[in-house]
Amino acid sequence: MDKKLAIIGAGNLATRLSIELHNQGIEILQVYSRSVTSALTLAKLIGCTYVTQPDMITSEADIYIVSVSDHAIGYLLCNVNFNHKLVVHTAGSISIDELKNYSSNYGVLYPLQTFSKYREVNFLNIPFCIEANNRENEQILVDLASIISNDVRLITSEQRKQLHLAAVFASNFVNHMYTLASDIIQKSEMSFDILIPLIEEVASKIKEISPLKAQTGPAVRNDKNIINEHLEMLEMESKLKDIYIILSESIYRYHSEKK
Amino acid sequence: MDKKLAIIGAGNLATRLSIELHNQGIEILQVYSRSVTSALTLAKLIGCTYVTQPDMITSEADIYIVSVSDHAIGYLLCNVNFNHKLVVHTAGSISIDELKNYSSNYGVLYPLQTFSKYREVNFLNIPFCIEANNRENEQILVDLASIISNDVRLITSEQRKQLHLAAVFASNFVNHMYTLASDIIQKSEMSFDILIPLIEEVASKIKEISPLKAQTGPAVRNDKNIINEHLEMLEMESKLKDIYIILSESIYRYHSEKK
Repeated sequence: MDKKLAIIGAGNLATRLSIELHNQGIEILQVYSRSVTSALTLAKLIGCTYVTQPDMITSEADIYIVSVSDHAIGYLLCNVNFNHKLVVHTAGSISIDELKNYSSNYGVLYPLQTFSKYREVNFLNIPFCIEANNRENEQILVDLASIISNDVRLITSEQRKQLHLAAVFASNFVNHMYTLASDIIQKSEMSFDILIPLIEEVASKIKEISPLKAQTGPAVRNDKNIINEHLEMLEMESKLKDIYIILSESIYRYHSEKK
Repeated sequence: MDKKLAIIGAGNLATRLSIELHNQGIEILQVYSRSVTSALTLAKLIGCTYVTQPDMITSEADIYIVSVSDHAIGYLLCNVNFNHKLVVHTAGSISIDELKNYSSNYGVLYPLQTFSKYREVNFLNIPFCIEANNRENEQILVDLASIISNDVRLITSEQRKQLHLAAVFASNFVNHMYTLASDIIQKSEMSFDILIPLIEEVASKIKEISPLKAQTGPAVRNDKNIINEHLEMLEMESKLKDIYIILSESIYRYHSEKK
């Protein structure tokens, strides 16, 4: 692909995405971040220039990938002259329409994954959700995403919002369950690593059977002895007890309804 | 190991454990299940005899592994003459003391994993939690577990109960989060597989950093715009909305307290 990119943002997603695009031979002209350290670090990694003022952003790029926090995006877009070049954002919860006042060519490139600056991740299986203002731009974004991923999908803004909500359950809330489990374990002087094989198996099982069918445990069996014993153990932890109750009820309800 | 086993139970755990012990050269004399089909199926797989009446259980075994549902265990133990042989159960929530009326040699062999009859699982990294009424029996059980696993730990009954509670959070509740996410996805005409790489990464990340530090998402950032948008999207799903609220609050509270 002969398109030249500018990367606006140098956070977790911007960093990992830029490195991957660069490694696959895509030319990145410039990085913008309001933080000199972040801009410099990323620019060094991918061998390009950087700026820290929005009005200094290059006018030479073909595609501008805007990957900043949701609340910063409005200010940024206002302060760059994109000159009808293709502008895309990478956010789960922002509609494509938010871009239409800033360029006549715009779209969305949303990789459904959690990123950390310093943790490598395999891009090939990351689902890239694409949306654009017309077919031509859609094809450009599909082609771009296909350079780094084998899983590129056309997803509307409304679907993407639902996807982001689902991801909160499947990732943020799941990770919090790990935190709560870790707390219980450590209070009994054991080490969290004892749970790792179980956690991996639960995450792996749903590749073969639906999570509804994979459900096990006292709640789905409606095993009141165990449930009551657990609630007694949580007597001094009222918040944890509330979570235990609401989730056990939800499991039981789901399985009663779907039977 | 020259000890001969009898397996009492033919459920998910009993099945996978028996197959693995058999494959590693442990002699299993007999399988008991009140279900002929289950008893016969497992006995065939490991090439031994089976019985379906508790009072027919062999007196020739050195170790009896009792792996039946929690509510069935009392009835079973009453109806077998163990003749002071080593009797162990495999349950997370049952104290070792529940066995003391049935033999002078008893213990616990609790593998912390979720099992399905027809799904192979790698035993080598499964944590085996061992407890026994004396050092000699403890050593026998450590030796037995070490034949199939590299992770054998001495865990008291009280710790095991806490571990089982933690596992409900880290596995049963996590799986339910997958179910809720799957529901949201399917209502928007997408397919659940789009979430798999994210789910795998979240489960994998905690091998390197603690789940508390790994937390991401709107709740930990206290991003009220996104949270309110999600709550609006869940307006018609009051139970899901309640779960969203209680878990977001819990995430925020944990991170405020631990800062």
